[in-house]
Amino acid sequence: MLDLFKEYRAHISKYISDYLQAQHQTLTSLNRWGDDSPVRISPFVNSGKLIRGGLSILAARMFGRELEDCLPLGAAMEFFQSAFLIHDDIMDMDEYRRGEKSLYFQYQEYARDQAIVQNLRAGQSLGICLGDVAFFWAYDLLNHLECRDDTRQRIISTASSEYVKVGLAQMEDVYFGFYPGEVSEQEILNVFRYKTARYTFSLPFMLGAIFAGAPRDQIDTLSVLGEKMGIIFQIKDDELGLFGQAEQLGKPIGSDISEGKKTLFRLYLMEASNETERNKLKMIFGNESLQPEDIHYVQEQIREKGVDKKISLILDELAAQSKSELAKLDISPEYKQVFEELMEYSLKRKY
Amino acid sequence: MLDLFKEYRAHISKYISDYLQAQHQTLTSLNRWGDDSPVRISPFVNSGKLIRGGLSILAARMFGRELEDCLPLGAAMEFFQSAFLIHDDIMDMDEYRRGEKSLYFQYQEYARDQAIVQNLRAGQSLGICLGDVAFFWAYDLLNHLECRDDTRQRIISTASSEYVKVGLAQMEDVYFGFYPGEVSEQEILNVFRYKTARYTFSLPFMLGAIFAGAPRDQIDTLSVLGEKMGIIFQIKDDELGLFGQAEQLGKPIGSDISEGKKTLFRLYLMEASNETERNKLKMIFGNESLQPEDIHYVQEQIREKGVDKKISLILDELAAQSKSELAKLDISPEYKQVFEELMEYSLKRKY
Repeated sequence: MLDLFKEYRAHISKYISDYLQAQHQTLTSLNRWGDDSPVRISPFVNSGKLIRGGLSILAARMFGRELEDCLPLGAAMEFFQSAFLIHDDIMDMDEYRRGEKSLYFQYQEYARDQAIVQNLRAGQSLGICLGDVAFFWAYDLLNHLECRDDTRQRIISTASSEYVKVGLAQMEDVYFGFYPGEVSEQEILNVFRYKTARYTFSLPFMLGAIFAGAPRDQIDTLSVLGEKMGIIFQIKDDELGLFGQAEQLGKPIGSDISEGKKTLFRLYLMEASNETERNKLKMIFGNESLQPEDIHYVQEQIREKGVDKKISLILDELAAQSKSELAKLDISPEYKQVFEELMEYSLKRKY
Repeated sequence: MLDLFKEYRAHISKYISDYLQAQHQTLTSLNRWGDDSPVRISPFVNSGKLIRGGLSILAARMFGRELEDCLPLGAAMEFFQSAFLIHDDIMDMDEYRRGEKSLYFQYQEYARDQAIVQNLRAGQSLGICLGDVAFFWAYDLLNHLECRDDTRQRIISTASSEYVKVGLAQMEDVYFGFYPGEVSEQEILNVFRYKTARYTFSLPFMLGAIFAGAPRDQIDTLSVLGEKMGIIFQIKDDELGLFGQAEQLGKPIGSDISEGKKTLFRLYLMEASNETERNKLKMIFGNESLQPEDIHYVQEQIREKGVDKKISLILDELAAQSKSELAKLDISPEYKQVFEELMEYSLKRKY
């Protein structure tokens, strides 16, 4: 499974680089940003695991499309992702992403070098623009897919309506990040569903399957399967945010805690705590100058109150539901195995 | 001409409202933002002159499309415009737009009401997301145009590559806004070309004509004509920013001066000034606490140094070039007249 994704990743990455090189040719004479942006964004787009691109190709491949034909779709998924991340880093004021300087921060440094006083604002503003440009590139790629015209139209339509929901779920997530109070289990799961699960799994699956002309019922199954797998993925992400190591995560340990991220771990821990504990936790979550002992306290309490076990049961349940969806997929045993390994990997991943 | 645009405006506006109402139906149960965003954005999208939408419809109409069929195109142009403006207001930290609270500022107030301490950042973050969502709506509208499949593909392709250039020109404009030094005439005209002229005139013209199946040479002529008209429009915009009244502009008098906007007026004035005058002007441009006498000084100097006359000559030249492009258009006398009135209006408008 991992080898397959590595192969997809290499191909998507090459396609993205070629596309941006062609854009650079066209745009280099426009102005300094036309010359700079395609080059600057290239390592950013290519630096992740390219999961969304890979998943869209997996879905298209298992319904019979050639790898070569799927690459614009995979690349489009990654341009959307990069655009969201560029904007996300501005919202969170994250100066680093995966160990590299985030794009707005790169611009901020550039502005500082140009003796611009308001270099933070300049950096943020340039970052907002670049994110917008990445969205246009993403749509350009979708628009050039080699397939039936009505298929392409359906792909753009499905993508647009799903990305609208991603944007709205991102607003909710942003809001929860700033909101000092607690939020309900249902509210957390709603963000998981639209911002992570449908966005990262369902949508790439669906677009790949639509692209390959898969039957309606198969697309629907992939949509549901994607939600289950995506929620597993998000819960594991939050777990790694609490217990993972900095080098593996590419972000500081405890940053989810200091950002006051509203996770199921946090919610269940709050619910299981008495008032004294809750007050202590409230001092820790959202505190930007966290001490290592604060992080340890949260980790210990999660274990002591059995929050980790509770979440483990939820993951088991989601895995079982995923398996029953998987059984409905009319694909070759080889691809079924890929899915099983993917789920296994999601449940056990360490980064 | 104005009546025609008023008619287009009314139809586009109705179409936008209906579209957003349908989106509200679908999204109201998603989360608070799904319920809020389509309603909140509606007056914002509908509050301008809907120039870009109107121009796209004009172009499609003059090559024979029915008004009704053009409305999704006109609406799409306005969603793109709103998305850019929502992001623009965040970059410029403009709390008001056309006399109404800008969207990020509305969110900031909402966040403040929810006892969120970092309400500015929350407002900006929510605004970035809403701008993104508006882009997705815009593409969704383009994707649903009733026309030949290859025409729709060409529209999305033309729009995407042009919006990429708009984004890059916006970066240049943002950069110039923060950059303390002077910029060259060529640099200013380059921003005018891509950020205003091609975006506001050429692109709507071209998309309307492509939509209506106009011949290639006509589309090319519209592209050039749009650039000329657009640069006229931008220069007049800068003139109004210097000499216009606050009520007509919907922004404070002198805000272009206090923002340090890099205009031809400023450049030519700097060039025509001696060192003492230049130093005084440098204290005024970009000064956020401007006094009325500062604005008067700039206005007087522009007249005294003949900058207004110099610019008037440029406008005359652009108008003459526009007319010779207009002569190449193979359209009915009625529509030619609309164009002539449009140019007349651009040259004489007071707001």
